[in-house]
Amino acid sequence: MSYIRVSYLTEAKNLEQKAESVAVGMTVGSWTDLPAAKKETLQGHLGKAAGSHILSHTEDGLERGIIKVDYPVANFTYDIPSLLTTVFGKLSMDGKIKLVDIDVPESFSSHFSGPKFGIQGVRQRLNIQDRPLFMSIFKSCIGLPLNELVEQFKFQVEGGVDLVKDDEIFFPDERAPFFDRIEAYREVIQQSGREVLYAVNLTGPVTELVDKAKRAIDKGANCLLLNVLPYGFDILSELSRHPDIQVPIMAHPALAGAFYPSPDYGIAAPLILGKLMRLAGADLVLFPSPYGSVALPREEALSIATALTEEKPGLLPSFPVPSAGIHPGMVPVLSRDFGLDHIVNAGGGIHGHPDGPVAGGQAFVEAIKATQSGIPLEEYDNGPLQTAIKKWGVVK
Amino acid sequence: MSYIRVSYLTEAKNLEQKAESVAVGMTVGSWTDLPAAKKETLQGHLGKAAGSHILSHTEDGLERGIIKVDYPVANFTYDIPSLLTTVFGKLSMDGKIKLVDIDVPESFSSHFSGPKFGIQGVRQRLNIQDRPLFMSIFKSCIGLPLNELVEQFKFQVEGGVDLVKDDEIFFPDERAPFFDRIEAYREVIQQSGREVLYAVNLTGPVTELVDKAKRAIDKGANCLLLNVLPYGFDILSELSRHPDIQVPIMAHPALAGAFYPSPDYGIAAPLILGKLMRLAGADLVLFPSPYGSVALPREEALSIATALTEEKPGLLPSFPVPSAGIHPGMVPVLSRDFGLDHIVNAGGGIHGHPDGPVAGGQAFVEAIKATQSGIPLEEYDNGPLQTAIKKWGVVK
Repeated sequence: MSYIRVSYLTEAKNLEQKAESVAVGMTVGSWTDLPAAKKETLQGHLGKAAGSHILSHTEDGLERGIIKVDYPVANFTYDIPSLLTTVFGKLSMDGKIKLVDIDVPESFSSHFSGPKFGIQGVRQRLNIQDRPLFMSIFKSCIGLPLNELVEQFKFQVEGGVDLVKDDEIFFPDERAPFFDRIEAYREVIQQSGREVLYAVNLTGPVTELVDKAKRAIDKGANCLLLNVLPYGFDILSELSRHPDIQVPIMAHPALAGAFYPSPDYGIAAPLILGKLMRLAGADLVLFPSPYGSVALPREEALSIATALTEEKPGLLPSFPVPSAGIHPGMVPVLSRDFGLDHIVNAGGGIHGHPDGPVAGGQAFVEAIKATQSGIPLEEYDNGPLQTAIKKWGVVK
Repeated sequence: MSYIRVSYLTEAKNLEQKAESVAVGMTVGSWTDLPAAKKETLQGHLGKAAGSHILSHTEDGLERGIIKVDYPVANFTYDIPSLLTTVFGKLSMDGKIKLVDIDVPESFSSHFSGPKFGIQGVRQRLNIQDRPLFMSIFKSCIGLPLNELVEQFKFQVEGGVDLVKDDEIFFPDERAPFFDRIEAYREVIQQSGREVLYAVNLTGPVTELVDKAKRAIDKGANCLLLNVLPYGFDILSELSRHPDIQVPIMAHPALAGAFYPSPDYGIAAPLILGKLMRLAGADLVLFPSPYGSVALPREEALSIATALTEEKPGLLPSFPVPSAGIHPGMVPVLSRDFGLDHIVNAGGGIHGHPDGPVAGGQAFVEAIKATQSGIPLEEYDNGPLQTAIKKWGVVK
């Protein structure tokens, strides 16, 4: 039999007993009192305690620590709503308990397509192999007419970015409609003579997103941005597995902070922004960087990146995009922390450059070149990068 | 101009300034430095601080309390993903902050259909006006063959329930397929000679749920159960507004505990299980009762019920279903706390009755009758209720 192993951080008089009670309660409901015939029927659906580990004792004398429970794969359909409902639906409401990890066997994950492009697929589209990619965020989108957004887009492309993403709060867009943006930016990209991926914010009724994505691609869209958590993981799975959707999907972490930051409740960041995003098929995943004001603890941010990229049979890796508070002086630290395969993603660090957004982009391009060549940023050419460093410094 | 007022519980050096910074940062991004022409363009999208209220000071000398921000309705499309992304997408990841309330004006809510049946619609379907309704939960579902589930269903109907719901973790159902259950239970209901609503667990790919619901109704389904949070609010909105889906929708709170229990993070229970469920169109909403082991603080449970039922122009009220830990001895307290318009929902309190599930149901029916007649439970007839009281007592 094949099991999904789930780890929780919780408190109980006795963690081992708690694991056993969850294993039974969250699967077949009750066990010891069942007649033998029923036990035989239900055996294949019974969860099993898979260990516990005390981390500390609370003031009330409770054990606090990790419990592990094995759920039979037979209890799930192959989708994330089934997974989350079964392992944390009711249990999430049962006192102090945080869902920290889910390990699915290949017999489960093989039913998910995972990222269609992954890191290599995105790199191939851009024809860039030897450095981190560089992405920019619009300064703002909502309420602006198309011509102003096209201007912003041009500045970003001129500055040398590889990817540009819409603002995730760009919903009503009458002044710069979805399909018109795609076409207008596509023209800018063509004029630039190189490939740039534009992640257009895919919004609307959840049941219309697949069709809207297909039409977007027909109009020339080459990347999609999705607020995965507000829409639900399942639509990401459907988009990623759809044969007509042949462009990378970028997952925005909007709402993730409603899940991960509490030590006692919710769902850990490496699971909700790492494993589940990858399983559901995000090619690129934004998550809070460990540096800026909207920050994650360093270890947690690195764990997200690990979950997105570690070897998993049948699943391509997703591109980690540590975001928020990124300026050119952080590029060496980003490379140290995330290696070659990450995306340098900046907003204020581009638009806030003293010489404007084109110089802002160029400063990052220079910082990435310097870092890849092993040159300390301060010693690079006297150009946009040095101006950026004067403003923001270099993070060591 | 029309605004959505959003309240957050947060900490900051200065809450008033925090409200202002959120109002600008989460709408147009920046303001004071913008040229006049751009201000004119963006004025209609600019958020406004709408007050703050200090509740305490933290050990670090920060102000802790409520901030209120008004977001222009013009910043939203009329759906809950847009609402949550805009008011709490990025902000959820910005330190200690909990989304506690959202007040939408009628100019926004009028674009939602809300509950199609509401309390009165459900009552009319059952032809019961003068008492709380009574619902039962299967003892367990997963892995059981249809004939055993039909037996469980019969016992529940014989016991006198008005509604029966599937187990929310009932996903793989090869031994008792979705459409077969609907037909088999429908027959039991018809044989009983009275109406009973059976909430069948609607599962599958999110984009297929509307079609599956329609087919279920064609097969005789008279109620649908949905794990709203794992699937995302938007599919609930779509089901509720669909003209062919003419049966009540019951929202299960699965995963809600990943959002509401932390004092510092997440989304408050009365918002996520109350207001948003109603706005999205749930006719019946399960939420943790203030009594059992899976318990909410009493005030919070009552606030959910208030959010589901208080007068709102253009929105029918949703039926409150305080759940978990309910036994017959709690019926008077349920009535005291939730009034006439609630649903007495029990699982263990029915199946655990010493004389079996039929007596278990009858005990509740008696408890409801006694309570409606003002008779103390202990003084009611010497039947199943008295046996239940001997086991579980009477809660005062």
